[in-house]
Amino acid sequence: MRPLEFKNGVLKLIDQTRLPTELIYVECSTYKEVAASIANMTVRGAPAIGVTAAYGIAIGASAVNTGSKEDFFKELEEICNVIRSTRPTAVNLFWAIDRMRRKALDNRDADVSAIKDLLVREACEMDREDVEINKTLGMHGNKLIKDGFTILTHCNAGALATCGYGTALGVVRAAHDAGKKINVFADETRPYLQGARLTAWELQQDGIPVKLICDNMAGHFMKSGAIDCVIVGADRIAANGDTANKIGTYSVAVLAKENNIPFYIAAPISTIDFSIESGDSIPIEERKAEEITHIRGIQLAPDGISVANPAFDVTPNRYITAIITEKGIIYPPYGAGICRFSNI
Amino acid sequence: MRPLEFKNGVLKLIDQTRLPTELIYVECSTYKEVAASIANMTVRGAPAIGVTAAYGIAIGASAVNTGSKEDFFKELEEICNVIRSTRPTAVNLFWAIDRMRRKALDNRDADVSAIKDLLVREACEMDREDVEINKTLGMHGNKLIKDGFTILTHCNAGALATCGYGTALGVVRAAHDAGKKINVFADETRPYLQGARLTAWELQQDGIPVKLICDNMAGHFMKSGAIDCVIVGADRIAANGDTANKIGTYSVAVLAKENNIPFYIAAPISTIDFSIESGDSIPIEERKAEEITHIRGIQLAPDGISVANPAFDVTPNRYITAIITEKGIIYPPYGAGICRFSNI
Repeated sequence: MRPLEFKNGVLKLIDQTRLPTELIYVECSTYKEVAASIANMTVRGAPAIGVTAAYGIAIGASAVNTGSKEDFFKELEEICNVIRSTRPTAVNLFWAIDRMRRKALDNRDADVSAIKDLLVREACEMDREDVEINKTLGMHGNKLIKDGFTILTHCNAGALATCGYGTALGVVRAAHDAGKKINVFADETRPYLQGARLTAWELQQDGIPVKLICDNMAGHFMKSGAIDCVIVGADRIAANGDTANKIGTYSVAVLAKENNIPFYIAAPISTIDFSIESGDSIPIEERKAEEITHIRGIQLAPDGISVANPAFDVTPNRYITAIITEKGIIYPPYGAGICRFSNI
Repeated sequence: MRPLEFKNGVLKLIDQTRLPTELIYVECSTYKEVAASIANMTVRGAPAIGVTAAYGIAIGASAVNTGSKEDFFKELEEICNVIRSTRPTAVNLFWAIDRMRRKALDNRDADVSAIKDLLVREACEMDREDVEINKTLGMHGNKLIKDGFTILTHCNAGALATCGYGTALGVVRAAHDAGKKINVFADETRPYLQGARLTAWELQQDGIPVKLICDNMAGHFMKSGAIDCVIVGADRIAANGDTANKIGTYSVAVLAKENNIPFYIAAPISTIDFSIESGDSIPIEERKAEEITHIRGIQLAPDGISVANPAFDVTPNRYITAIITEKGIIYPPYGAGICRFSNI
């Protein structure tokens, strides 16, 4: 299961706003279409957003119609800027853009057409690497999971949030593939319902037992002893381990700590923002009120109601039992543990 | 604003499943219609359920067509049993049924027609008392609220959950009426969306500033310093102060404690179940999966997904800063504080 596929210069995305009742694809043949698909959440999930952005840059660069290298690099900057402005929180987006820009700049002596080819190849490479990273991450994470565990997850950090396999759900898949009997509790994850629509769907497709609950039920099930550990993804991890992830993650982490349940972050190293010292500096995207007041056109709240809709929150490092990456598991104190990876 | 009105032997209920987009009334002229209205949540909220049940018994008793007192009491038992089986958690339902039965039994020497009259009068009296209780409770609770406070609430413990004025929102109204500048954050309260549909609506109607958030955002706003206190209602309070309330209340309480924010329960004494020692004995209603998988016919989760849908959870007494009742504010240790009221 893969949310994105690049072929003949066109990026084909599963429209994740339509799952699980409809499996529909959106085809992007311009970088502006790719940018729109990130902004409107046709594609979502930090790693998937990163690779989508890379493909967007490759598509945009390929379409630049100039022999002048100066013009090409000017247009490349514009393409990167448009894609950069789609969503503010997930750092993988900026990481991917930087990597693509660097690839072009490192090869500025080549022909424009050669640079275009290199950018397409770089995006494909990042796509391939992402799946590999998730599988390695899953293998490491599997060591933390005992046979018979029931794992709570929030949002969707699965195949649909990556280029396949998933981060949090990559750990679930690795444990399941290792023959362990694993059950998953999926928070529905309001307002966008990534848990109900995506996590429930992709685990069901893979035959991994999953039970859907509302976000506000997670604490109750932790207290009643139904949950053995929590695993979630991440949109940005600060150098001290503070982690931005889907709104509600902080609450799950506090409830896990209160109930002595391990709380794990599963994310590739590209999710770590080594440039910021703590989660206080992570910008939190505010999305539009209609995501809360309406579901598929059905009005759920009174006209004119005031709404707050932060898309992410920050979980302070003290609530995080460990961070599972493709390079291994990082335990507290995170500053030192994370520092080791800063030059990889 | 009142969710129920009894006139000429008919109980007229606001259909709370249709708010806030439609203000529609349901008329119940048989006790079975009343029972169905409780079970299907046309009317909800522990105090409102209690008084609705009382009216249901009055309506049912009035319709018993017999001169034989023995037959009358047999049918009265049957009516009480049907109404008793509608919902298991809120103790006000059982309290109201017991009070109505006692009224009949205490007057078993009177004519059947006189007993019928007494039952109608008793239900009307409980209705009147409820509003008075809420206003007194609000007055006590107001002492805990400072000018400028932002109050988080979960579910709807407002006028719509009572016979008017509300318990948790009764405290908000009392503070607002006292001239204090009060802001409310309303959790939307999945799956039934009592916060989005009811709390947001009734506060908006009264001109009290309210901001709607998803349940999973409450922790984020507590951590960021936006919330000064939490006030919620209750469906059943054990003799040790453990409190059953709408699913998600436990999580809010843990998050409040973690962030040093006072967490208050506002409920009439009739919500206290003196017969049970702790919250472990409170039965938790499990409702149907469709409440989570669908909203107004729109499918949100994959076909055949497994779902858990507990309608309530239990907040252990250690998370509760105080319990606000019409008889005053109860502080820990709750066992002794609650005991004082057991003979009122």
